[in-house]
Amino acid sequence: MQKTLEEALKIGKPYIAEGACASYIPELSLANKEDLGICVLTKSMDCYSVGDTKKRFTIQSISKVISLAFALERLGYERVFEKMSMEPSGDAFDSLLKLDTTSDKPFNPMINAGALATIGYLVPNTSFEEMLEYTRRVCMDPEIIVDKKVFESEMSHCARNRAICYLLQSKGIIECDVEDTLILYTKMCSLSVTAESLANFGLVLANGGRHPETGVRLMNMEAVRLAKTIMLTCGMYDGSGEFAVRVGIPSKSGVGGGILAVVEKRMGIGIYGPALDQKGNSIAGQYILEHLSKELKLHMFDSEA
Amino acid sequence: MQKTLEEALKIGKPYIAEGACASYIPELSLANKEDLGICVLTKSMDCYSVGDTKKRFTIQSISKVISLAFALERLGYERVFEKMSMEPSGDAFDSLLKLDTTSDKPFNPMINAGALATIGYLVPNTSFEEMLEYTRRVCMDPEIIVDKKVFESEMSHCARNRAICYLLQSKGIIECDVEDTLILYTKMCSLSVTAESLANFGLVLANGGRHPETGVRLMNMEAVRLAKTIMLTCGMYDGSGEFAVRVGIPSKSGVGGGILAVVEKRMGIGIYGPALDQKGNSIAGQYILEHLSKELKLHMFDSEA
Amino acid sequence: MQKTLEEALKIGKPYIAEGACASYIPELSLANKEDLGICVLTKSMDCYSVGDTKKRFTIQSISKVISLAFALERLGYERVFEKMSMEPSGDAFDSLLKLDTTSDKPFNPMINAGALATIGYLVPNTSFEEMLEYTRRVCMDPEIIVDKKVFESEMSHCARNRAICYLLQSKGIIECDVEDTLILYTKMCSLSVTAESLANFGLVLANGGRHPETGVRLMNMEAVRLAKTIMLTCGMYDGSGEFAVRVGIPSKSGVGGGILAVVEKRMGIGIYGPALDQKGNSIAGQYILEHLSKELKLHMFDSEA
Amino acid sequence: MQKTLEEALKIGKPYIAEGACASYIPELSLANKEDLGICVLTKSMDCYSVGDTKKRFTIQSISKVISLAFALERLGYERVFEKMSMEPSGDAFDSLLKLDTTSDKPFNPMINAGALATIGYLVPNTSFEEMLEYTRRVCMDPEIIVDKKVFESEMSHCARNRAICYLLQSKGIIECDVEDTLILYTKMCSLSVTAESLANFGLVLANGGRHPETGVRLMNMEAVRLAKTIMLTCGMYDGSGEFAVRVGIPSKSGVGGGILAVVEKRMGIGIYGPALDQKGNSIAGQYILEHLSKELKLHMFDSEA
Repeated sequence: MQKTLEEALKIGKPYIAEGACASYIPELSLANKEDLGICVLTKSMDCYSVGDTKKRFTIQSISKVISLAFALERLGYERVFEKMSMEPSGDAFDSLLKLDTTSDKPFNPMINAGALATIGYLVPNTSFEEMLEYTRRVCMDPEIIVDKKVFESEMSHCARNRAICYLLQSKGIIECDVEDTLILYTKMCSLSVTAESLANFGLVLANGGRHPETGVRLMNMEAVRLAKTIMLTCGMYDGSGEFAVRVGIPSKSGVGGGILAVVEKRMGIGIYGPALDQKGNSIAGQYILEHLSKELKLHMFDSEA
Repeated sequence: MQKTLEEALKIGKPYIAEGACASYIPELSLANKEDLGICVLTKSMDCYSVGDTKKRFTIQSISKVISLAFALERLGYERVFEKMSMEPSGDAFDSLLKLDTTSDKPFNPMINAGALATIGYLVPNTSFEEMLEYTRRVCMDPEIIVDKKVFESEMSHCARNRAICYLLQSKGIIECDVEDTLILYTKMCSLSVTAESLANFGLVLANGGRHPETGVRLMNMEAVRLAKTIMLTCGMYDGSGEFAVRVGIPSKSGVGGGILAVVEKRMGIGIYGPALDQKGNSIAGQYILEHLSKELKLHMFDSEA
Repeated sequence: MQKTLEEALKIGKPYIAEGACASYIPELSLANKEDLGICVLTKSMDCYSVGDTKKRFTIQSISKVISLAFALERLGYERVFEKMSMEPSGDAFDSLLKLDTTSDKPFNPMINAGALATIGYLVPNTSFEEMLEYTRRVCMDPEIIVDKKVFESEMSHCARNRAICYLLQSKGIIECDVEDTLILYTKMCSLSVTAESLANFGLVLANGGRHPETGVRLMNMEAVRLAKTIMLTCGMYDGSGEFAVRVGIPSKSGVGGGILAVVEKRMGIGIYGPALDQKGNSIAGQYILEHLSKELKLHMFDSEA
Repeated sequence: MQKTLEEALKIGKPYIAEGACASYIPELSLANKEDLGICVLTKSMDCYSVGDTKKRFTIQSISKVISLAFALERLGYERVFEKMSMEPSGDAFDSLLKLDTTSDKPFNPMINAGALATIGYLVPNTSFEEMLEYTRRVCMDPEIIVDKKVFESEMSHCARNRAICYLLQSKGIIECDVEDTLILYTKMCSLSVTAESLANFGLVLANGGRHPETGVRLMNMEAVRLAKTIMLTCGMYDGSGEFAVRVGIPSKSGVGGGILAVVEKRMGIGIYGPALDQKGNSIAGQYILEHLSKELKLHMFDSEA
């Protein structure tokens, strides 16, 4: 396994040159484009790491999975999907298009409109501290904190998210205060994790929400199932369909460079590689996952595994 | 199992009243809205049937799975996806929108634009007879033939598909004769199958492309994997995302009333119920599959199964 | 002439039943739907009035013409159209669609996005008091003031305009404070005018920007020409094209029920009728203008006049 | 006047370098990009010409004005606009977007969808010969014929127009044979005119449809008024709004390089310059018209003329 990871790292490296760090948030553009790390945690709690797996970076959109699961546990399925769909949209993560034309609902909770709506539902019902606590628990990483520089940088460059929020408010989807929503959303995006934290979280999801060692339930099972399904259909922005075909592992990427991947019943995978492709996914990370999927037969429909 | 199916049938029945037979093709509107049948074929070749499982109906969009697999075997992945994406679009099955705005490619092979492109690639490289032969083999049903009434009815009401074809031609995606493409496409849609044929085909797919008894390879393994993945993300038109969450079984519906469902490594399911919802999916069929998924723990992420 | 106006009023009246007062701003929905008034002021300063021509109502979108002219005078053509087009869009007045897809510019200054951008350019360069002064002058109506109830009602129901502003900010089009922009925009919309004020303003525009009696220049000639042209192509929201054909008089409507109409070199017309059609134009007002155009040969291409 | 035209030609010339001949129809791409000609015919029948005003080129989209007027005369307003709007769309001339989303009608008769619908209404009610006869009459040019090379070139590159036709058929807008529609449409586009023919036609329109010398009615007055209005709002493709502001003369361009311009009650202008801008309008032609508008005070709202 260790060898396979080293190989995968070597295969991913050259693609870094074709990518670029997120540029629309100044603080993110300062990341070291060359960083790359892979962490795999298996069901038997064997942990394999290569590269920059202990380096902290901000979780960004991967927090959408956490917020969704948390909202499902706290508010229930009916409330969360009362005014939100769960369809992949084929549009970019920050698109307003379908929200304002085809439908009057955010298309799914993995794009900004849907994630902001989800946070809007949570604002009157929780606190950031509770959500941080939940995040640390499911990532089995007590050191997760808000990266204040990134948080402040994002808050001062969030006009588009603010526009999405007010559009949601105008449609009666966000009913609480928009600024509170933006702050909570941006705090969740600014949590600093490592490839290891993501591998941990991945294994919890792969294990149906139970702690892989103790068997203690950390997440509600229905929330876990729903999260994994939506990661599969919508987790890699408007590249989700092709990623499902080529890799076949429910995954969620963030513009901080992280990818969370969940191999059902078998392992969690965390990747860090801040050079992104045009859709906002870690470019090396995707090639690494494709390689691992092939070598380790991780595709969900790899019938001869 | 037999009891579970009977129960599922009873649960699905009442929803028929909310649906309607496809109206845009006169011949399809003549179907008996009350028909309903479920057939399950397990890996051990046990076959369970309730309701109208031997009644013939036209395969319609489910043929898109067959044409895609056939094209992948005949032409290869590179050729098939040279000018086509594999992203779910969130738009209706006959949408021109994304084809003419966001992208210059059909979004995926499960919507009309993509399926017509796929057929267009095949026209110079195969004959209908070969495709019929292939269909009969993978459905393990030698009696499949073209329903001539439906074929003719569709050919005289296909202005929109013809428009899509010429748009594809104008973009250099269809290079062969448009009328030949339309005829081959419509013939494939007009093949008459039964819920049993679909259950057979489902089991072949669940089994990685091998005949479930003899182990003989009927379909290329990569084609099978790709087909199942795309069924999962795009198989139920613009309801695919929600269906994946609630049911979690790769499926493909057709406006003839059929649904093909593939439970990885375990079973094939065929359903016939011509009353459709607004997206074009068998309305009772979806509730039946949701019930079966829950009762038999068929959801792909049912981690505690 | 007086008789023709009375006739026109009679022709317009019955259409009121098919319209409705603007509902999205509570205070506007309180208007008396049955109100209807027409005022015509000719170049020789003959004034003809029928119906409710002295009743005050809020100017709403008609202020877009004033803000545009004022911005052209204050900032110049280059600055105003640096990041804005002047194309009719065929979309509704509050559409975000084209702003976020086809183009990164508001399509024209007569839709909300363009008017908000225009106000955003003015915020650092003027005060509301100056704009009020300008409005009173060009409308030859010193009694125009802000209707506070409407202003407050609009400010508490402007989530969509706020969304548009932040979207404009995210694209670098609005560079000043968004709340300042919204307040100035909404104040301008809340100015209370009469059908007479609009007829006055119309005559000033018809007269190339000069006071019709004294000949003193009240508005810059280029600004007047541009305003009239854009009223013609974009002034009646997404009904502008048909209105130009049927009526052929540059006009601008507001959801307060007003219509400003400019008969080149001949007269100004002001109408008040708060029952609106689905596009947001005074329903009776349009039929009245169509009748006047026919009877008085006011169509710009009425070659045999 | 002659001097002004020579000046205008000199001003337009340098812009040719920034344009290009239409490339999507092979035969059009063979035009001599450097050609440029202006012809002005005044109400008193004084004719001024500079440059290539006797060179034949194909009329292309300018024929949309003729077909519209002819259809209005032959079929009446109600029939022509039963399933077509008259709104500028802000989209490109060959767009399918609005036709398939916002509305189920072509937006206006100056874009391909609307012009094809118009021709579709005419097919069962007229012959090409009648339309040719009408064209020769209103252009006062008996030598107009079909340019066969262009016609054939266009017929073999019309997949997109064919797609539009079938989409119109699928919506019940075109009810006659699509191929007949395409042939008649393409024949009308392939008529060869000169800048002089266009100036003649422009003067007839400026004169309310009467022969400028004899006073004999050549066109129905309502048709003329409607045609001029729609030229103003929609005649220069998605550049119509800006053209109306800067030039203020109802005009219609064609990708053959022609522009027809109508100065109400005063003159007709014909221009030939096959180097086009990105929207499909003669690039030098537009600058020439802007110059003439300024020098000769031709803007419709030039109040101090």
